[in-house]
Amino acid sequence: MSLIVTGSIGIDTIETPDGKKADSVLGGSSIYFAAAASYFGDVRLVGAVGEDFPEAFIGDFKHFQVDTTGLEIRKGSKTFRWHGKYMENMNDRETISVDLNVLAEALPPVPEVYQDSAFVFLANTHPAGQMALLENFPKAKLVVADTMDLWINTEKETLLNLMKKIDGLVLNDSEAELLTGESNVIVAAEKILELGPKFVVVKKGAHGAYLKHAGGACALPAYPTKQVIDPTGAGDSFAGGMMGYLTGADDLSFESLRKAIAYGTIVASFNIEDFSLGRLKTLSREELDKRYAAFCEMLTI
Amino acid sequence: MSLIVTGSIGIDTIETPDGKKADSVLGGSSIYFAAAASYFGDVRLVGAVGEDFPEAFIGDFKHFQVDTTGLEIRKGSKTFRWHGKYMENMNDRETISVDLNVLAEALPPVPEVYQDSAFVFLANTHPAGQMALLENFPKAKLVVADTMDLWINTEKETLLNLMKKIDGLVLNDSEAELLTGESNVIVAAEKILELGPKFVVVKKGAHGAYLKHAGGACALPAYPTKQVIDPTGAGDSFAGGMMGYLTGADDLSFESLRKAIAYGTIVASFNIEDFSLGRLKTLSREELDKRYAAFCEMLTI
Repeated sequence: MSLIVTGSIGIDTIETPDGKKADSVLGGSSIYFAAAASYFGDVRLVGAVGEDFPEAFIGDFKHFQVDTTGLEIRKGSKTFRWHGKYMENMNDRETISVDLNVLAEALPPVPEVYQDSAFVFLANTHPAGQMALLENFPKAKLVVADTMDLWINTEKETLLNLMKKIDGLVLNDSEAELLTGESNVIVAAEKILELGPKFVVVKKGAHGAYLKHAGGACALPAYPTKQVIDPTGAGDSFAGGMMGYLTGADDLSFESLRKAIAYGTIVASFNIEDFSLGRLKTLSREELDKRYAAFCEMLTI
Repeated sequence: MSLIVTGSIGIDTIETPDGKKADSVLGGSSIYFAAAASYFGDVRLVGAVGEDFPEAFIGDFKHFQVDTTGLEIRKGSKTFRWHGKYMENMNDRETISVDLNVLAEALPPVPEVYQDSAFVFLANTHPAGQMALLENFPKAKLVVADTMDLWINTEKETLLNLMKKIDGLVLNDSEAELLTGESNVIVAAEKILELGPKFVVVKKGAHGAYLKHAGGACALPAYPTKQVIDPTGAGDSFAGGMMGYLTGADDLSFESLRKAIAYGTIVASFNIEDFSLGRLKTLSREELDKRYAAFCEMLTI
């Protein structure tokens, strides 16, 4: 089975409350997703960067064996840049500067060889863009999308149309509340299923995740970790681990989805242990499986 | 084994954001604790109320078969009263009025027949009071205390002395941060163990609980529930379920503690389904065990 991700690729500058700073590092939703998913099989990437995109970052794609046939290096354009700073709680953050650059231009073309992709993840971007990208995958067996508060506030109608065409939605708890008007995550998740998707995963950061599916519901805690260096990409690596597992298992039952969010939880717990892809670059599948087993054991009451 | 709880007994008035109100209902930390613990065996209660304490509430103690030998109805005194209102998120609350009344007077005497109590829970009160009460239980096998932000802010030294004499501490996440200066729950829990207790349970409300013990660590989610009518007593009923289970099992291993916080989670999930003890009054042990089994199954990945 083939997994594809469409989404942002960026150059990030990240500051954390302990005074640490990572300057101009590789980032973007599809990057964290692809690196995380790569532990479970091949990942295809569709995204655009500018001429300024560092050669070294292409090496990172190779490290994770990401299929970059769909990576467009656009002449005359610049790469998306984001500069953010985390607050003391390592959860809230402020954007110091953002330059959309190539993200504000036309969508990258989807290579024809990608049209047989069976598992599709539409990482966070304008819902009209997600809708347009989705049309390139007529053989999709599972389509999951992420979204954010900006689109819920400004493009709700388009987002609601998208939700009728996807199988799963991944979003965080404040976004689930914004979308449904319900502060209780359990109620909000039920309301989201009424909008179209067959399942929803509500990410709660350090508080874990909640899965609602016709076959059941499941709340899982985050993996208890002391070492939180940089939370950037936690949600995207969670989604990457989840979709990577599902693609490998080729099983869309509730039980399989539960295993998938557990794997997502574990990949995300590694991702936050360093800036950018620093920790995932040194992570082995053995380490991943070992922590996954410890997580399952922790929850065996 | 015998379980004893010392703490407040009150008459509460509670308002919730949907406009509902419960006027002058039975409340107080030791009440919720005792009702929850009663599912697992006998519970002894030490506490004082005033002459105004309604006869009907004594009937509630009988319903849960709480041993009220240690209940003092103090002549010339009035019962502790609290009037609170929950915010839209059903987590934060404001105190509209509070009358300490008998809680501001001398501690109730501990009956001699209670001195063989093996499992002791010092529900939230002034740490000097907790320390004085503790001296009445020379045969205690397990002593666990709860505390709150007020004592961390105003009586920290006394609280730190108490912590050297107890086996376990139960507190919520904001209190753990206040006590240790650490916003990461995992780090805060480690620091608390350095202060004396053998284990600590950090309650995170709708986000579950975290247990740290020499034998291991465990994060559990809350039981996913839509029906949150009144969160008052959630933490106390959690502690009651936990201590009730431990007393019945007479096993203080990490594995037993994990089961205990799972039972606490489940009793608390019922408690919040109605005002005061409304839901626990109709709850059977069979219902409790059924939800406990569903919770364990939910976490079997």
